[in-house]
Amino acid sequence: MDGKSSSNTAGKPIRCKAAIARKPGEPLVIEEVIVAPPKQGEVRIKIICTSLCHSDLTFWKLKVAPGIFPTILGHEAVGVVESVGEGVHEVVEGDTVIPTFLSDCGECTDCLSEKSNLCTNFPFRLSPWMDREETSRFSDINGETLYHFLSVSSFSEYTVVDIVHLAKTDPAIPPNRACLLGCGVSTGVGAAWKTAKVEAGTTVAIFGLGAIGLAVAEGSRLCGAKRIIGIDVNQDKCELGKKFGVTDFVNPGNCGDKTVSQVIIEMTGGGADYCFECVGMKSLVHEAYSSCRKGWGKVVVLGVDHPDAMLTFNSFEVLYSGKSIMGSCFGGLKPKSDIRILEKRYLDKELRLDEFVTHEVEFEDINTAFDLMTEGKSLRCVIWMNK
Amino acid sequence: MDGKSSSNTAGKPIRCKAAIARKPGEPLVIEEVIVAPPKQGEVRIKIICTSLCHSDLTFWKLKVAPGIFPTILGHEAVGVVESVGEGVHEVVEGDTVIPTFLSDCGECTDCLSEKSNLCTNFPFRLSPWMDREETSRFSDINGETLYHFLSVSSFSEYTVVDIVHLAKTDPAIPPNRACLLGCGVSTGVGAAWKTAKVEAGTTVAIFGLGAIGLAVAEGSRLCGAKRIIGIDVNQDKCELGKKFGVTDFVNPGNCGDKTVSQVIIEMTGGGADYCFECVGMKSLVHEAYSSCRKGWGKVVVLGVDHPDAMLTFNSFEVLYSGKSIMGSCFGGLKPKSDIRILEKRYLDKELRLDEFVTHEVEFEDINTAFDLMTEGKSLRCVIWMNK
Repeated sequence: MDGKSSSNTAGKPIRCKAAIARKPGEPLVIEEVIVAPPKQGEVRIKIICTSLCHSDLTFWKLKVAPGIFPTILGHEAVGVVESVGEGVHEVVEGDTVIPTFLSDCGECTDCLSEKSNLCTNFPFRLSPWMDREETSRFSDINGETLYHFLSVSSFSEYTVVDIVHLAKTDPAIPPNRACLLGCGVSTGVGAAWKTAKVEAGTTVAIFGLGAIGLAVAEGSRLCGAKRIIGIDVNQDKCELGKKFGVTDFVNPGNCGDKTVSQVIIEMTGGGADYCFECVGMKSLVHEAYSSCRKGWGKVVVLGVDHPDAMLTFNSFEVLYSGKSIMGSCFGGLKPKSDIRILEKRYLDKELRLDEFVTHEVEFEDINTAFDLMTEGKSLRCVIWMNK
Repeated sequence: MDGKSSSNTAGKPIRCKAAIARKPGEPLVIEEVIVAPPKQGEVRIKIICTSLCHSDLTFWKLKVAPGIFPTILGHEAVGVVESVGEGVHEVVEGDTVIPTFLSDCGECTDCLSEKSNLCTNFPFRLSPWMDREETSRFSDINGETLYHFLSVSSFSEYTVVDIVHLAKTDPAIPPNRACLLGCGVSTGVGAAWKTAKVEAGTTVAIFGLGAIGLAVAEGSRLCGAKRIIGIDVNQDKCELGKKFGVTDFVNPGNCGDKTVSQVIIEMTGGGADYCFECVGMKSLVHEAYSSCRKGWGKVVVLGVDHPDAMLTFNSFEVLYSGKSIMGSCFGGLKPKSDIRILEKRYLDKELRLDEFVTHEVEFEDINTAFDLMTEGKSLRCVIWMNK
């Protein structure tokens, strides 16, 4: 094959259906779109299924930059390679792949280092274009440009993704499980495994038991954490959390006169060894910091409410607490290699994925997925493109 | 000996000379004072020599709480045990000891853990009293109470220190070198060694080349750092830094239109692996954060300008930079065990201590030490109690 493809559609535009976000917060509209062939370094993929992540919702509602419309959202997915552009040798037609918003060029200092997952050649950026040139591969039937989203745009039957944003995946994994590894679940599991490096026998506190928080619990469980404390204002998360290894539950509404951190410090005799903020509220980052064990506590920031939000810490406390503060982008995972490890652990029945999928809908019902997440009813709603 | 002492003075008050800070910022006054015998868990020490650390200067000038007067400052010292209180078995009369502001009870979770140096039984606090009861062992000849400082108060011929604040030291080390290990030099060396865990072949940036910053350079050199960049507004520090392993020097005044972080990012092709803030200016913490390599950079905070200063970071940057932020209290060192390791490295001619001592004065000239540090002329001025 060597950079070429034998599919009937290779090299030609494909007309297919996509769910277009035309205006902030308005229901997606399924329309016919034109998906141009992949250029150099790019791959065109037939999406099998995609799941809705909270970031889709955030950008769907965003009325100011970096929000931009019309766009094709979606960034958790699995698909099959339809054709490849010039210079692509890593995948061939028919390969099963997971697109990832984070790139992995495999060649830069970061991609070659064990310590980083932040590719230098293709740095993470909120861009509506392809990675190698400021153009789109999508247009509507009137010729209007449709913007890409997070280098993935999976709410389309076909999409074009740069090869640095593609991880080959084991086709043995059901697609409605594999898609989860493209963002949220990997981020949570990786945050415990790679960013915090949770040690066996330790105590973890997780602020917010959405899909990412529950994935942190799952990752912490796999790392051997002894005690996993979930914190959520939704009491239903108490039972739900148990499925993912949460051993203790704190509802901030039931803490009386005490702050959550006071409760956690009492429960743990000094604070949790690791605290994860999975909501994206800066006040919770401070509560997580306070809930952390002095001497060695690590605070891992996984959420962000808006790009300009500032996190503030008392310098004296930073100096004399022995705690450290870190962020976790895609859980510190290297997309191409670490997703394979998670897949293996799923196939070995160690990593739980099934429990994250609470709903499944057909592509035409994609707005239902948005409703379910908005109402807090779903963890992950899988959207099947052509079931 | 078993908890008792055979010295002639044991069990009796000692009348000796001390340098008293009676009012904020006013020259110390050498007066006769009464030093009570050590109570349970305490040790009375004859100070051999002491050095002036910047924290002495800070608290000497402090007109508001936690500044408190009259007090006996000084917390970098070496001395000989004169007598011990009930229950003290760890040291006996005649032992050479280094008092440390940080405690090490040897029994709590933190002291038993490899990961922490923040004793839980005797937590660090800015208290003018002894550790086990809210009393002082010092009074002037009129019977007025004199306050302790940082659990040490070494600007006195004799002082009383809790056993948890005492590290036995190798008498082979000259006292005018040993005293440095009580605070500043240990803090800097430890910050590189224990807090940041500087790896061989890496790049370090140090903001502020006072004694602590130079000790960070020394610690980084011992850890095998390839490149050590010193940043200071005082151009004289360029030559001085070379003695401590500083390989590159940046004077913020010579950066033209560029910020220091821009210069460091250019010099290093992306940022330093480790950045240490040793001045205590929050704006420099942010500059250090910006100067750090994405993907794995560590920012270590060593200074604090005032207890309420807040450090602010952009949440998006925290989330997507892969950098971590940590403080370093006493360089992450466990006083009783890690000072011994530094001593051995000095005796093995690996760790440089001699170069830190720029001045030595007799006790009666202690105010000269304050002048020299205020004028930025000294790194460490050693004060001999009875040369």
